[in-house]
Order: sequence, then structure tokens, then C-alpha cells
Amino acid sequence: MIQPRILEVRTKILKVNDETARAMRRRFEAAGVLVVNLVSSPGSGKTALLEETLRRLKARGMSVAAIVGDLETDNDAQRLARSGVPVRQIETHGLCHLEAAMVDERLAGWDLAGLEILFIENVGNLVCPTSWDLGESVRVALLSVTEGEDKPLKYPGLFNTSDLAVITKTDLAEAVGFDRALTLSNIEQVRPGMPVLEVATKTGTGIDPWIEALLARRVALLNSR
Amino acid sequence: MIQPRILEVRTKILKVNDETARAMRRRFEAAGVLVVNLVSSPGSGKTALLEETLRRLKARGMSVAAIVGDLETDNDAQRLARSGVPVRQIETHGLCHLEAAMVDERLAGWDLAGLEILFIENVGNLVCPTSWDLGESVRVALLSVTEGEDKPLKYPGLFNTSDLAVITKTDLAEAVGFDRALTLSNIEQVRPGMPVLEVATKTGTGIDPWIEALLARRVALLNSR
Repeated sequence: MIQPRILEVRTKILKVNDETARAMRRRFEAAGVLVVNLVSSPGSGKTALLEETLRRLKARGMSVAAIVGDLETDNDAQRLARSGVPVRQIETHGLCHLEAAMVDERLAGWDLAGLEILFIENVGNLVCPTSWDLGESVRVALLSVTEGEDKPLKYPGLFNTSDLAVITKTDLAEAVGFDRALTLSNIEQVRPGMPVLEVATKTGTGIDPWIEALLARRVALLNSR
Repeated sequence: MIQPRILEVRTKILKVNDETARAMRRRFEAAGVLVVNLVSSPGSGKTALLEETLRRLKARGMSVAAIVGDLETDNDAQRLARSGVPVRQIETHGLCHLEAAMVDERLAGWDLAGLEILFIENVGNLVCPTSWDLGESVRVALLSVTEGEDKPLKYPGLFNTSDLAVITKTDLAEAVGFDRALTLSNIEQVRPGMPVLEVATKTGTGIDPWIEALLARRVALLNSR
């Protein structure tokens, strides 16, 4: 389907988004805030991983916050707020991705200079969020073992635009007959050299390396300024 | 975000799609073909269920076929073709849904009058396919037990436009601590009275009622002509 008119309008809107995102990225970098954009299919365990991550980083005395996107409901914000860190919800009411301006608006009143890591949990979707830069420092593509090994090949756009892949729910790997080698090879095929972490939020397996990877990224951000 | 220009163009494109879909629906009904549009998140088990469904219907001597949509790869068509029924792939190359005209084009050369049930496996996405009528008789929303009980509340659009919900991978329910009552109550809240089936393709549990539901829908279609 060629839809030249919608493509033209979409291109202009994306251009505006890119400009907003670039300005936000400069502000984030100046303030020393690592911004992590979590993208995945619905139900791959983004919120559970984020909840545990916020809890652990807070326990280390770090200043962290989260913005969570969903079509409807503020369930996730309520759930994450239990970790005791600042959390804000964006309800997109039908839109399948977050946009830079939505995040920018939700930042109002937050002192960026007092923040070390800001997490953005995107709308659960493997397609739409791909084109929308949110000014993030790191885009993370999450993939649960229950979703199937072929997802990197089917959704190359997400893996191509992400900096890090996280395989989630590895505690279910045996129950679903997950083919780890095939998944890693498919990720490598779509995005050669992409770092891949493996976590099971429920059991805690792999959470330490994930936290360390985030902290290393923040150090790199500070050193690059 | 209000984007009046993109909304206007989108409305016109959807209108054209609706007209194409309506014409296709008339052709399907005239030919007595039940068309089943399967919509879900990526990795919820659409292809596995479809593979088993095609196999069982073929074993009963029924004339069935499938059209499968993905952003990239024809993996699913290859996999489904093993069932020995006609299967065609649509690669959308970045588009997060199927459109009526794409399906119409793929129908070329198939004798509709010789077909009893046509399955359309949509692109794995809980948002985009919602607005696009494909001329189907039945839209089925699939939700796996691994995705979380809150999905009907977060994606009401899909459940509101679907005729039937299927909970998949029930063999994993215990491993993931699936709250069945909560899920059923959430579906009921979004779409009161919606019929819900529960299947585990891997073990075969619930497949018979699913097949029977499809056959009953086809009888109803024939009787309504």
C-alpha cells in the first residue's frame, strides 16, 4: 500500500518530534540524567523489571524516576509508585507509541539536575515506538522467552534502533522450550554486535548485570560531557 | 497530541478501507466463506493455534486456507504450509496492521466458492489492526496467560471490536501465576457478554470447543444468507 499523503504528513510530524527529542537529549545530557526507553511487546515484563530496577537503584541511594505510557489506565504508575520513587503516567488514548512532546510535558516540575536515571516505559508495541525518538540515552528492546525466537527477524526495526536487548522471563525458558541459541543468532543477524542481557525478574537471575549495565551507561554519559 | 492533518488523512484512508472491506464481506458471504481475523500481541501463539486448527479442519475434510501478515519474513506461511492447506504471506514492511486491499490482492486466483473457512493472521499488534476492517466474519482477540491479566483494560479497542476472545497457553497458567478470574472479569468489564474460550495448543486442551465454535459460526453464516 502506497499512501503518499499520509507518508508526507507523517514525515513532517516525525521531523518535529526529532527536533523536540534532540532538545530534550541536550537537556538530559547537560543535567547528567541517563534516560532509558524500554520498548517491547505487551506483556513481556517491562513493568515487573522496571519495578525491581527502581527498587534496587533506590536502595543504592540513587535518584531515579519513571514515566510510563499506556493506551488506557494508570495501573502501571500505581504499581511502580509502590517502589517509592517519582512516577508519572501518560495515557495515549489509542496511540500506539509515546512522542517526545508527551514526555517533555510530563517532565514539568521535575528537577532534572537532581535526577540520575529516568526510565520511560513505552506503550507495549514492537512497531510504533520504533520511529519516535524520546531523547533517550539508551533504547532497550525487551523480548520474553514466551514470545518466540523469531521476533527479531519479524521486527527488525526495533532491534535496529535499540542499543541493548534484554531477554526476559528466562525462568520460563524450559517450560516453553525456548531456543536460546536461535534467539541470540537471530538478534545477531538483525543487529550484529548488539549486547544482550538475560533476566528473570521473578527469581532475580540476571538482575545484577542489568543494573551494572545501566550504571556503566550513566558513567559513560557523564564522561562524555 | 492533536494532529488534525494526520487525523484527516487517516480518516479518508480508513473510509476507503471500509468500503473495500464491505465489498469483500459481501463476496465472502455470497460464497459461504467464514473469514476469521486473528489479532493479538506478538508471540501470543496465533500461528501455533492456527497451524493446529488448519490441521484439524483439513482432517475433517473441510476446505480451509490462510493469509498471514508480518512486517518481515515468510516464516509463518512456510510453517503453516506444512498443514497442507493453501497459505499466502503478506509482508507489510513496517506497517503494523493488514489492510483490506492487501487481503483482496492476495485472494487473486483462489476460488472462494470452493472455500469454507479462510483465516487471516494479522500482524502481531494490539493497537493498529483494531481500526482496519478486513471484511472478516469474526474477529478474534487472543491473549496468552503470560501477557498479564490487565491487557483487556489497557487495550479496550481490540476487545471492543472483537467477537470472541481466546486465552492461549493455558498450560503455562500455573507457572506464571495467571489469575483467570481477574482476566475474565477484565474482559467482561471492557466487553460485557463477550464469549471467551481457553486453549493450550501444546497440550490440545480447549481445541475441540474452539473448532466447534468456528463450525457453529460458519453454519450461522450460511443460515443468514
